[in-house]
Amino acid sequence: MKKKIGVGIIGYGTVGSGVYYILTTKAHKLSMLAGVDIEVIRVAEKRPELFKGEVPAKLTTTDAYEVINHPDIDVVVEVIGGIEPAYSFIKKALENKKHVVTANKALMASRGGALLALAQSQGVDLYFEASVGGGIPIIRPLKHCLAGNTIRRVMGIVNGTTNYILTKMADENTSFESALKEAQANGFAEADPTADIEGHDAAAKIAILASIAFNSRVTVDQVYTEGITSIAYEDIAYAKEMGYAIKLLALAKEDEGGMDVRVHPAMIPAKHPLASVSGVMNAIFVEGDAVGEVMFYGPGAGKLPAASAIVGDVFEVAQNISHNKIGSMACGCFENKKLKTIDNTESRYYLRLEAVDKPGVLAKIAKVFGDRNVSLESVIQKNTSSNYAELVFGTHMVRDKNLREALKTIEKLDVVTKVCNVLRVEG
Amino acid sequence: MKKKIGVGIIGYGTVGSGVYYILTTKAHKLSMLAGVDIEVIRVAEKRPELFKGEVPAKLTTTDAYEVINHPDIDVVVEVIGGIEPAYSFIKKALENKKHVVTANKALMASRGGALLALAQSQGVDLYFEASVGGGIPIIRPLKHCLAGNTIRRVMGIVNGTTNYILTKMADENTSFESALKEAQANGFAEADPTADIEGHDAAAKIAILASIAFNSRVTVDQVYTEGITSIAYEDIAYAKEMGYAIKLLALAKEDEGGMDVRVHPAMIPAKHPLASVSGVMNAIFVEGDAVGEVMFYGPGAGKLPAASAIVGDVFEVAQNISHNKIGSMACGCFENKKLKTIDNTESRYYLRLEAVDKPGVLAKIAKVFGDRNVSLESVIQKNTSSNYAELVFGTHMVRDKNLREALKTIEKLDVVTKVCNVLRVEG
Repeated sequence: MKKKIGVGIIGYGTVGSGVYYILTTKAHKLSMLAGVDIEVIRVAEKRPELFKGEVPAKLTTTDAYEVINHPDIDVVVEVIGGIEPAYSFIKKALENKKHVVTANKALMASRGGALLALAQSQGVDLYFEASVGGGIPIIRPLKHCLAGNTIRRVMGIVNGTTNYILTKMADENTSFESALKEAQANGFAEADPTADIEGHDAAAKIAILASIAFNSRVTVDQVYTEGITSIAYEDIAYAKEMGYAIKLLALAKEDEGGMDVRVHPAMIPAKHPLASVSGVMNAIFVEGDAVGEVMFYGPGAGKLPAASAIVGDVFEVAQNISHNKIGSMACGCFENKKLKTIDNTESRYYLRLEAVDKPGVLAKIAKVFGDRNVSLESVIQKNTSSNYAELVFGTHMVRDKNLREALKTIEKLDVVTKVCNVLRVEG
Repeated sequence: MKKKIGVGIIGYGTVGSGVYYILTTKAHKLSMLAGVDIEVIRVAEKRPELFKGEVPAKLTTTDAYEVINHPDIDVVVEVIGGIEPAYSFIKKALENKKHVVTANKALMASRGGALLALAQSQGVDLYFEASVGGGIPIIRPLKHCLAGNTIRRVMGIVNGTTNYILTKMADENTSFESALKEAQANGFAEADPTADIEGHDAAAKIAILASIAFNSRVTVDQVYTEGITSIAYEDIAYAKEMGYAIKLLALAKEDEGGMDVRVHPAMIPAKHPLASVSGVMNAIFVEGDAVGEVMFYGPGAGKLPAASAIVGDVFEVAQNISHNKIGSMACGCFENKKLKTIDNTESRYYLRLEAVDKPGVLAKIAKVFGDRNVSLESVIQKNTSSNYAELVFGTHMVRDKNLREALKTIEKLDVVTKVCNVLRVEG
């Protein structure tokens, strides 16, 4: 049995510094539990000013390959993010038979299959708990604890920035733009917020979760994605009135027709456990045929939460090494399932239209829905001025394609002045 | 590498039949993920009528030792519950170098330390995910994913029966007695509900969680325990008025003064994630110094949820065997920490008293609190008749001993007719 596990960290930004902090301050506990000492051997950061004297100089380097090729390093922690050079670093580390722990959702959601296969062929572990849900344990529970389940559905609030914005809009009746500005001012949104507000970050995370849940690889480019930029204050007000909350939802479900994996804003019943997840918190709701409904809730980002997840992985790798085991998180994608196109997905919908306020308008619109097999569940009509009315429709379950075709026709009706928003209703 | 893992199940009651069902219906998936086939070799049940033809006759037996001593069985699943004969069965199985998976909270909370030590010395695994929180993954996440954290606090709603009763009382304004009767009629409470309503079941579970969280063994007999039988409808009404929910809380926290592990009804702020856990659902809220606050939510009991957790454990044991690893869930109690007596714990309190309605009463009571260093945060006074008033006090943090001494004196005041209830406020 090995007495010491050497760790190398690539990246000393927010998360990397958190990993170094935990590994050094919790060394005794980790060693007692893992049965081996866990020691940081090298930390690579191309901007050495980030070290700020926190890491002994002899352990620091600006060259990632000093970590990747170091003979005393057993586990490489990659926390630089992005596709390149992270992919090359991890690939080389695996080729060097180093175990790898990464928080890199973009990489795992695009090339995870290849990297997991490489890890397996090299006889080493590749762990990525921190890639989804920050500090929330979700990948290991889903993969191990729920292994006996056929997973029917995973629904997550997995992006803190958008949840912060939507919570602000709902709590303070502000517009998307001003909520975004406040998120940026408070450090909860980046200067370029595209990846968050357009749903790309959430799409990477649900691709990872779907691959585990359905044992079939889903990559980020296969995920239908809508962001939250179209959400108006009016939508949130109607949602409240109708007993819903609007959230950016990452959804993965499966039926006989195939897998259905998508990210979009959705109205969720106020009583659903996900509806009360507010601010930057994340939560992942999992439905399995045996367990029923379980939910995992916590901070989805941040220095120490993300580092907590990474150290959990390093701990497990250390335990594996000390017990001569590898591969417990090996790729579980032994199926090759069909993914539904968005046209073929089904959902309930909320639709907000502006129309001329005169007799017969509702009948004209309702007829179009009927012709396209779109069955309505509720209608709210409000006069916005003496000439115009706002119409809000709730539909029963409907095929996306049918709804889109109905909307195309409705948009052309002379009585309809604007289709304001279209949102799915899930939960 | 072994090609087939043999499983034996002791107990074919509700949970045992669920385990058999999942292991047989999900055999393909489990085999693909674990890298070995998992096959049920024997099921022992002393009441053979429970088999109802669901298990091939050649696999059934009434003798648990046919499982324990079977040469082809690698993993023994114990789902009969209780201390004996479960303890003897598990002990013998471990001595036979069988891995053991159990759902037995009573046993793990009383003799878990000895059994885990035996497993370790025999080089086999003893897993017990189903002993707390039913289908909710909590033990593995707490032990592995959060290993890098110093756990500050664990707060759980871990008993579905009492949560169902308290939810009924709050939603339907019913008494404890009638809510209990309804729980019994709906199969959510046993004919003898003592273990649930007196908090013993929750005490076993928090003993298990505290041992993992603090790396120091806590047994069920060390847990201060109060049940919910004293909760009156009036308490729930006041709680609502003050913005709280009343829950049976299993609590474990630690500070310089030692560990503080207890089960009692508590008022929890309505906005706390635990407050909205209703009916038979369970949730465990964990506070770690790195991760912050995470919560695990789901069904705390039931045939398939509990079986889901057990199969997750069997899956991990199978994976361990196929990878020649053992011991990943070995006892982590490398510390020997002090446990606080209830006298020395601190909490906020809610107190409901009945007093004579005349001038100066409040001053008399308040003086007693002041003399004992009990600082008040809020007072509500309501006249219940022309002669009596109900007084509800909320305190700041106070040492339990000081509060109890103040109450002893207050009970003796001639103006106080009754101390109706005393509840802690946590969250």
